[in-house]
Amino acid sequence: MLAEIIAIGSELLTPFRQDTNSLYLTTKLNELGVNVAFKDVVGDNAEHLTLVAQIALRRADIIIFMGGLGPTEDDLTRECVAEALGVRLVRDQDLVADLYKRFASRRATMTDNNLQQADLIEGAESLPNPLGSAPGQWLETTYDGDRRLLMLLPGPPFELERMFAEECLPRLKAKLPPAYIATRVLRLAMIGESQADSIAAPVYTKYDDIQTTILAGAGEVQFHLKASSESQLVAQDKVDRLAEELEDALGEQVFSSGGETLEQIVGYYLQMRNATLAVAESCTGGLLAERITSVSGSSRYFLGGAVVYSNELKTLMADVPPLLIQEQGAVSKQVAIALAEGIRKKCRANIGVGITGVAGPTGGTDDKPVGLVYCAVADSRGSEFTENRFPGTRERIRLYSTQRALDMVRRRLI
Amino acid sequence: MLAEIIAIGSELLTPFRQDTNSLYLTTKLNELGVNVAFKDVVGDNAEHLTLVAQIALRRADIIIFMGGLGPTEDDLTRECVAEALGVRLVRDQDLVADLYKRFASRRATMTDNNLQQADLIEGAESLPNPLGSAPGQWLETTYDGDRRLLMLLPGPPFELERMFAEECLPRLKAKLPPAYIATRVLRLAMIGESQADSIAAPVYTKYDDIQTTILAGAGEVQFHLKASSESQLVAQDKVDRLAEELEDALGEQVFSSGGETLEQIVGYYLQMRNATLAVAESCTGGLLAERITSVSGSSRYFLGGAVVYSNELKTLMADVPPLLIQEQGAVSKQVAIALAEGIRKKCRANIGVGITGVAGPTGGTDDKPVGLVYCAVADSRGSEFTENRFPGTRERIRLYSTQRALDMVRRRLI
Repeated sequence: MLAEIIAIGSELLTPFRQDTNSLYLTTKLNELGVNVAFKDVVGDNAEHLTLVAQIALRRADIIIFMGGLGPTEDDLTRECVAEALGVRLVRDQDLVADLYKRFASRRATMTDNNLQQADLIEGAESLPNPLGSAPGQWLETTYDGDRRLLMLLPGPPFELERMFAEECLPRLKAKLPPAYIATRVLRLAMIGESQADSIAAPVYTKYDDIQTTILAGAGEVQFHLKASSESQLVAQDKVDRLAEELEDALGEQVFSSGGETLEQIVGYYLQMRNATLAVAESCTGGLLAERITSVSGSSRYFLGGAVVYSNELKTLMADVPPLLIQEQGAVSKQVAIALAEGIRKKCRANIGVGITGVAGPTGGTDDKPVGLVYCAVADSRGSEFTENRFPGTRERIRLYSTQRALDMVRRRLI
Repeated sequence: MLAEIIAIGSELLTPFRQDTNSLYLTTKLNELGVNVAFKDVVGDNAEHLTLVAQIALRRADIIIFMGGLGPTEDDLTRECVAEALGVRLVRDQDLVADLYKRFASRRATMTDNNLQQADLIEGAESLPNPLGSAPGQWLETTYDGDRRLLMLLPGPPFELERMFAEECLPRLKAKLPPAYIATRVLRLAMIGESQADSIAAPVYTKYDDIQTTILAGAGEVQFHLKASSESQLVAQDKVDRLAEELEDALGEQVFSSGGETLEQIVGYYLQMRNATLAVAESCTGGLLAERITSVSGSSRYFLGGAVVYSNELKTLMADVPPLLIQEQGAVSKQVAIALAEGIRKKCRANIGVGITGVAGPTGGTDDKPVGLVYCAVADSRGSEFTENRFPGTRERIRLYSTQRALDMVRRRLI
């Protein structure tokens, strides 16, 4: 079973907009055991769209069209798919009545162009759209003797996701052989992709029947495990067993094995230990606090913190002695530690974090180059720091720095 | 001249990875007067890839293949494009020598599979890749009598962008008729898309020869203007004139007309006025400071700030009277103003900002629902505040809140 996902809309061929619906759909299709073989983007152009539909009908079993279902003359999906199939469009009187009702309820006059939204491809079933005016369509048909499943869905993500979940998923499940697929995600902080893989590969390559995908981002490596089997229990058992073996091999570097983010995990540990956190950040400029507070409920363990860009504020907000800054420089391990200890004491938190460094692109010196970042963590047992040299852009250096700091807090709490 | 962009790699058909190279390439192609008509994603599958190449050869003048140029058996782009064209691959001895040199310089042994990177499609020119081992290819040919331009580029964005800029752009410019295209971007804060468009449409619809695209995000609307003409000067004059008319019509709501972000504009104004800024944020948890400090050089006007999640910290860091919090509640206009005035005084900044609200998804009450956010700005002339009710997720509410606060600072500085 191969699927093809087709995004329709000239705006998706500009530098400003990108299809993201296909990521959602791929997740859902994979869960049903269906792989996506092709993704396409095509503009609001009848000739191009009909061509793309014809090509898809030749090569894919399941074809999902997204967008182009509205009332304007740029909305061509219905007529082009019908054209590609060589069938007619049939105006559905129930849908016409629905449209009139919809407009009447909003005390608006319906212009004639809206009526095309009531046109169904011959043989198709209409899919209600509770969040918009354009209904979707579901069509089971044959093309050159091959069975084909077609879905026409609206482009706006919230309309598409609701319609797919409520209308398409039940129909697909009834149609497809049952798939028992289990997945697990292991996440590791502050380790290189090749280093992580050199430890993990000897473990996961033993299992032919589990698909392992490795993904790397700024300061993070993820192992995505996926197995299918004759029952959900067996599939789950497979990935669970491999996840356990990988955790044993990789040790403390694994910060989560259920997909949670590093800031979520740090939050869990803090709540578990009934501990509170405060941070004082210079070069990360609020990003660390922002990540911590992106977790709903973080007010239970995060007291707050200080963004201390100027030297005066380092003293004012986190009680860093001015002489220390003068002697060691604002970017130094001593100031990082003083920030962590100062903010901890000032906020009466259990744990304090300090970050100071050079995020660049300007401001670097031979002595203290762009990318040099000191992170410190302080608690009742004392303080520790790391000296880091991060590569890349300002944005990336700031992200790495917060990742390091969060990971230091996590290790402190294990 | 129509272009097709083809991204190759099975990882791009998973829910975890997405092609972003095509956005960069679209920008560059549009600048040359070339429109992108089709974008495709296809996996590391010889049959599928050859099919996609054949289809592209039939319908597009310029075809860019991205990825699949490495040394592994999954790297199939070279052989599949040659197959689609019906020509041979020719091993290039200079490229073979380069590969040996490259490995020798890293004191590594080259395995035989690397040699396929020296295979050129018959008639193609090799494009050097200073950032990676896989060279690209440039091929001018005909297909069924039609002229075709093909480029094979590496998948990693930094390799692709460098190779396209240094190797492909000069060749394309020499090949294509000169294009004189000018663009302008107007950005507006805290206005609805339909409201902005109802003011702007009567202006831009007068100009048939200028393409106007409207884009809307959280708390921001953008107008992208694009014109082409017989000379760069005339094209630039066209968009400049429309930009000016739109600015007149939209007034102060336009925060930038050269594409700058709101945080950049606020930074410009602060520097121009020789003024300093400090912020005290509760529900935005550091996001405001993070946005301000994402601008390189922001240390010249941004002193720092406080993330005051707990009530104690509101008092400790921004001198908000405990009684005020007790009487009015932490989420109140009074506390927002006290945060702005308190942090301003404490940090001796010219301007202080305070934000307090309910970002959700939990913590809302009938009285103070999720999305209720107070923003305040204080300076030597006094304080002002806004009461906002933002829709959407926690992330979106936080983004809206910082957008509102930044826009208030901007208006204060105009």
